[in-house]
Amino acid sequence: MAQVRNKQVVLRDYVSGFPKESDMDIVEGTIELKVPEGYNDVLLKNLYLSCDPYMVALMRDIGPEGFQNYTPGSPLTGYGVSKVIESGHPNYKKGDLVWGFTKWEEFSLVSPTLLFKIEHTDVPLSYYTGILGMPGMTAYAGFFELGSPKNGENVFVSAASGAVGQLVGQFAKLTGCYVVGSAGSKEKVDLLKNKLGFDEAFNYKEESDLDATLKRYFPEGIDIYFENVGGKTLDAVLLNMRVHGRIPVCGMVSQYNLTQPESVTNLAHIIFKRVLMQGFIVNDFYHLYPKFLEFLLPHIREGKVVYVEDRDEGLENGPAALVGLYSGRNVGKQVLVVARD
Amino acid sequence: MAQVRNKQVVLRDYVSGFPKESDMDIVEGTIELKVPEGYNDVLLKNLYLSCDPYMVALMRDIGPEGFQNYTPGSPLTGYGVSKVIESGHPNYKKGDLVWGFTKWEEFSLVSPTLLFKIEHTDVPLSYYTGILGMPGMTAYAGFFELGSPKNGENVFVSAASGAVGQLVGQFAKLTGCYVVGSAGSKEKVDLLKNKLGFDEAFNYKEESDLDATLKRYFPEGIDIYFENVGGKTLDAVLLNMRVHGRIPVCGMVSQYNLTQPESVTNLAHIIFKRVLMQGFIVNDFYHLYPKFLEFLLPHIREGKVVYVEDRDEGLENGPAALVGLYSGRNVGKQVLVVARD
Ligand SMILES: NC(=O)c1ccc[n+]([C@@H]2O[C@H](COP(=O)([O-])OP(=O)(O)OC[C@H]3O[C@@H](n4cnc5c(N)ncnc54)[C@H](OP(=O)(O)O)[C@@H]3O)[C@@H](O)[C@H]2O)c1
Ligand SMILES: NC(=O)c1ccc[n+]([C@@H]2O[C@H](COP(=O)([O-])OP(=O)(O)OC[C@H]3O[C@@H](n4cnc5c(N)ncnc54)[C@H](OP(=O)(O)O)[C@@H]3O)[C@@H](O)[C@H]2O)c1
Repeated sequence: MAQVRNKQVVLRDYVSGFPKESDMDIVEGTIELKVPEGYNDVLLKNLYLSCDPYMVALMRDIGPEGFQNYTPGSPLTGYGVSKVIESGHPNYKKGDLVWGFTKWEEFSLVSPTLLFKIEHTDVPLSYYTGILGMPGMTAYAGFFELGSPKNGENVFVSAASGAVGQLVGQFAKLTGCYVVGSAGSKEKVDLLKNKLGFDEAFNYKEESDLDATLKRYFPEGIDIYFENVGGKTLDAVLLNMRVHGRIPVCGMVSQYNLTQPESVTNLAHIIFKRVLMQGFIVNDFYHLYPKFLEFLLPHIREGKVVYVEDRDEGLENGPAALVGLYSGRNVGKQVLVVARD
Repeated sequence: MAQVRNKQVVLRDYVSGFPKESDMDIVEGTIELKVPEGYNDVLLKNLYLSCDPYMVALMRDIGPEGFQNYTPGSPLTGYGVSKVIESGHPNYKKGDLVWGFTKWEEFSLVSPTLLFKIEHTDVPLSYYTGILGMPGMTAYAGFFELGSPKNGENVFVSAASGAVGQLVGQFAKLTGCYVVGSAGSKEKVDLLKNKLGFDEAFNYKEESDLDATLKRYFPEGIDIYFENVGGKTLDAVLLNMRVHGRIPVCGMVSQYNLTQPESVTNLAHIIFKRVLMQGFIVNDFYHLYPKFLEFLLPHIREGKVVYVEDRDEGLENGPAALVGLYSGRNVGKQVLVVARD
């Protein structure tokens, strides 16, 4: 069978510090659109690729323990929405729509270890990179499973307008909580207050004393801090937690690219306040995916939960989209459109 | 009725930074050995007083939220073992031995809100300031309830020879764990290895690279870190936790007296490693006290759990004993003997 073009985004070399567009190359490979004899892989046509902050960790020379880092010269891997072109696996057939682990290229041959079949197509397909995909599950597991929210509690979310944060805020409102978000621009703050239903929001870049800011928005303290950024924000939050508060530690995006991480000095406050801080990875919670869909799909259909996406078109724009996460260029979930069907 | 002498240790003035002996005064008050008409307080003769690291937090101008700080000119409060001299409360009668909240003086009139009746006197009475009292319950709740230890896991304990730490290590051994302790002198390290059954122990003051030290003792990483000290030790531990590790945060004694707390920079490691850090206060766990006694008393009687105490005699020596906790002067549980019966 003939080979077809397969454009890819490959890692040029291991990255230290902040990633740059030039750390990735766009290369034109070729691929035979066929699953090799005897393999139970699936051949995917990639439609939407997800840009996620954790990806920079895999660009390092040494990746986090237990995760496979990228190889220079090979395409990035990541979450995406794809269509099955050919399947060597009994659970998948040609034409199936799936989301899960794929690669940054037009067509990918992958082992379907982390693929979910898409069964509801009355919502935008790209949602499976965000609200109905990994970030959605992350918000759901982190907020409900680790945060154990109760009606009337006070919730603070950082990186609040992003893929995960915007959902945490809406889940908090559905639970009857008071919720405040922080984000990095006026546009994002407006979005939080006017579209995403946050009670309050502020631009952390304009606050010189985060402790005072938090005391203003939370005179009674914070019950749940959904941690997306780390560093200075966390340190100020620790001064403002309530007794028996919870901090689901989802991410610390402000720290991922620093050679010397910022220091946190207020940890001793978790003792008298009996605070629980818990790091988690969404992969440990995918068994909840059916329950999550059952909860969320009706809310989406009724317009009770909304979702903001930031789309870029074409693999060529992948590096810029990815790098943009670390400067806050994205407004909402950063999606890369590779093909529409 | 006649007044009798009542020697007291009183706070001279609010303390900032490290407490000094001179921050406390020994004064000779008097007391009428009688519960005032209509009160349901109890009148105690104090036998053993407990010196505990948290006490410095109550010597500050502003104490921790939800806790009553000390008043200059008034005696310190704290845990102790006492004998009931007279009782206005139906649950207590003259001659009862109790442990719980009392004051740093010879006789105290207290409301019995946090008093436990001592029912087993075949063990040293002073044990109720330590292994069978608050520090014992702290080790038990922190290790078993928050640490969720499993046979074969790797446990690290800081301030390991102290009131709480020496028990955590022994509980870890009873659970079939590998346990390493850190302490501040050769004498303490020897105690840990030769008397308290720790698998390994080291003097943290002699280690220039704590990360390397921990990697030496825990080539496979740490499942449970029982946190007593905070600061540098915690920062090195964060680099060495295993996936799904737990950090019961019992105390951070190295930080209590610093005007500028040490910085912790490795918190982001709790995400990929899915680490749980949980601050706790023993007061939330006293409902487990009967279960704790049932578990521990047989082990003490059979000599399977031992306990090291460091005793000072007389209220006059109270300030030095208390202050000594913050320089590691105490070897084992610091007890102040006020009277023997
Ligand atoms: N544990 C898990 O399984 C899991 C899964 C998914 C995501 N996460 C984590 O969740 C967090 C949010 O991810 P997401 O997908 O929702 O990303 P996102 O919020 O859509 O995009 C990243 C955002 O982070 C903010 N940011 C970048 N640098 C920052 C800095 N120095 N200080 C403060 N904010 C900064 C920017 O927003 P501003 O303009 O507001 O600064 C940027 O838009 C990340 O930490 C990510 O690693 C964890
Ligand atoms: N959460 C609760 O409810 C609760 C209850 C009881 C106790 N605690 C906490 O548990 C911890 C241990 O208490 P404990 O009663 O068992 O005290 P302890 O260990 O008997 O006495 C304090 C010990 O701390 C160590 N220390 C002092 N300054 C230090 C420093 N800068 N760096 C490292 N170690 C230092 C010293 O031992 P070395 O010679 O080894 O340095 C000292 O002997 C404390 O943090 C305490 O606040 C918490």
